[in-house]
Amino acid sequence: MTDHRTTRTQVAIVGGGPAGLMLSHLLHLAGVESVVVDHRTVEQIETTHRAGILEAGSVRLLNDSGASDRVLKDGHEHEGIALRFGGVSHRIDFQKLVGASVWLYPQTAVFADLYRTRSRAGADLRYGIAGTRIDGVLDRPNVRYVADGATYEIQADLVIGCDGSRSICRELVADRNQYFREYPYAWFGVLVEAPPSAPELIYTRSPQGFALISQRTEDVQRMYFQCDPNEQPEDWSDDRIWDQLHSRLSGEDGFQLKEGPVIERTVLPFRSFVQSPMRHGRLLLAGDAAHTVPPTGAKGLNLALADARVLADIVVDALGRQDLDVLDAYTPRALDRVWKAQHFSYWMTTMLHREANGSDFDERRQLGELSWLVSSAAGSAYLAEGYTGWPDERVL
Amino acid sequence: MTDHRTTRTQVAIVGGGPAGLMLSHLLHLAGVESVVVDHRTVEQIETTHRAGILEAGSVRLLNDSGASDRVLKDGHEHEGIALRFGGVSHRIDFQKLVGASVWLYPQTAVFADLYRTRSRAGADLRYGIAGTRIDGVLDRPNVRYVADGATYEIQADLVIGCDGSRSICRELVADRNQYFREYPYAWFGVLVEAPPSAPELIYTRSPQGFALISQRTEDVQRMYFQCDPNEQPEDWSDDRIWDQLHSRLSGEDGFQLKEGPVIERTVLPFRSFVQSPMRHGRLLLAGDAAHTVPPTGAKGLNLALADARVLADIVVDALGRQDLDVLDAYTPRALDRVWKAQHFSYWMTTMLHREANGSDFDERRQLGELSWLVSSAAGSAYLAEGYTGWPDERVL
Repeated sequence: MTDHRTTRTQVAIVGGGPAGLMLSHLLHLAGVESVVVDHRTVEQIETTHRAGILEAGSVRLLNDSGASDRVLKDGHEHEGIALRFGGVSHRIDFQKLVGASVWLYPQTAVFADLYRTRSRAGADLRYGIAGTRIDGVLDRPNVRYVADGATYEIQADLVIGCDGSRSICRELVADRNQYFREYPYAWFGVLVEAPPSAPELIYTRSPQGFALISQRTEDVQRMYFQCDPNEQPEDWSDDRIWDQLHSRLSGEDGFQLKEGPVIERTVLPFRSFVQSPMRHGRLLLAGDAAHTVPPTGAKGLNLALADARVLADIVVDALGRQDLDVLDAYTPRALDRVWKAQHFSYWMTTMLHREANGSDFDERRQLGELSWLVSSAAGSAYLAEGYTGWPDERVL
Repeated sequence: MTDHRTTRTQVAIVGGGPAGLMLSHLLHLAGVESVVVDHRTVEQIETTHRAGILEAGSVRLLNDSGASDRVLKDGHEHEGIALRFGGVSHRIDFQKLVGASVWLYPQTAVFADLYRTRSRAGADLRYGIAGTRIDGVLDRPNVRYVADGATYEIQADLVIGCDGSRSICRELVADRNQYFREYPYAWFGVLVEAPPSAPELIYTRSPQGFALISQRTEDVQRMYFQCDPNEQPEDWSDDRIWDQLHSRLSGEDGFQLKEGPVIERTVLPFRSFVQSPMRHGRLLLAGDAAHTVPPTGAKGLNLALADARVLADIVVDALGRQDLDVLDAYTPRALDRVWKAQHFSYWMTTMLHREANGSDFDERRQLGELSWLVSSAAGSAYLAEGYTGWPDERVL
């Protein structure tokens, strides 16, 4: 007979990435206990490079909640971005336009901070588990899994699915609507050993397609360029990658791209997805489990943190009042932000990418849009507002 | 032997709509003489209902140049529009946002004013002619046509094609690029005998598609709704038309659509077109002859008047200096505005229309965009800036 161990908690959180850990942290601050499970190991999560731009509200949440004491110290405040087209860069000055910045701070660092904060507080965090299954979401939720030859069961009042874009929790929501959008392109992403080419991100539209120059550290940079979704990373030599980047960044303003060895190459898929509702009985979803965005505009991690913030309030309220109807407020409140972010990501994407079968008309129209946008204080502020993040009605 | 009559002038203008007459008027003010020819009769032009919204700059041009002494008196200043979605109207306050208005003043009235102004000044205006042909655009331009059994010839230094979307002048531009975009829908437009339903235009997005409530006079209103491009106006009874309008305008804020007999019904095609360059030798193009926009956002007439203003300056300069190279400045200066307007029209169109094969994702994203836009001062100002018209670097 297998060893069977049962734990009783208030909230079982499936998925220990930033959304799950942030939710666990905020619940803890409010006196609500939780257990976090994840099939990945801590090391796997720590070494998977993901997004790197935090909205002003995400930084406030990390700092003010005590989740990260490093983000303001080690993160790099970016007071703007450059939009580059026609071979010239145009700065969008976020601080001047909307009085907000974003921070360059990698998702791996956000995870590490949250993991350390929760560990220090003695949280029950279980990584590297297998065979997770969730039952009883309508009345008596429980999460079961296998580890070290034993079976484990977590009994909880609520289960929160923070288990990412391949969520298993998502499947348990009955009567769900799923909204999809496919894009006909992908991003080729590289990490390179080189000094920064610019102090801020450069979003580039060129006749060859989109490119993005980003930063990571003084010695390692992140760069992307639009590619076919079927490209194989191993087919791309360093030279071929630099040729693409140079051709897309070339221009008349003396911009110099700084080269170095390519130390990682990946192809990032482009898709948009939303599932609604985000609640079913005693199960709720947060982050990528409920919605994914294309990478343009870096909204994915920020939406996950915003979900955690909104959901923590609602869970604390529902448990305190012993009233599950309170949970109904979650879906509309979270999705209001999600659909704005879906539009923002779509806008940034379609404004800067080249469609394989795009017409010359579309190209000229894009350039008309970009030249209007950068010459308009209102248009630039609208973009800055979306990029730095919509203010939430409730701030910590 | 046919009677052959030759006239010598500085500028031959082919097309006597608003673009051609405004150009002739501005040239006259600068002491440059012109002859205007058009195959339509004055009555045909006066009775064809077209656009009805003038940008602030168009009104200034009409008023300050003396072309119209009625526009400020008889036109209706609109300080905003409503964007309606989810059954609720949201006002975009142009005056508050960008300090500018638009004016409701029909294109037929603009034409009538310009025609009277030019006639009173003794202009040489020839309507209802036939068999127009243009020759010698590289060295000795001449326009020939037939009227009353005689052949006429106009010899000029320059020929300007203001001959609309079926332009014959456009064909004479060598090495031209043509940019097209088709839209999968059209507008069903009606004139109805009814009092106004609202003081300003209402642009509506509904699950059934786009609708626009506009005004004309106290007793006659203009309304439109998105339809299939192949609809036949005669298939639509009054009842069927009102059913469509009611279903798209229905909502929760008590808005009441005022009905009356439908006195005109037409299907308006949706297409975008730009030809570049707008100059070839001694031939230049203005207005619809060089570019057309979909009707959403009412940019067509305003672009035609903006072309006339820019072109008049450049023609006067070129003739005064006897230097044709001056004319090279026209295409980039005009197209800068045209491509912004193409993008604005595309934006208004795609934000408010429903694609026949559009996904639920796109619908939710549109609603996310609209709710962000109306709640954002920056976004609303960006729309207001495009709607009221981009300020030109040179104002009369």
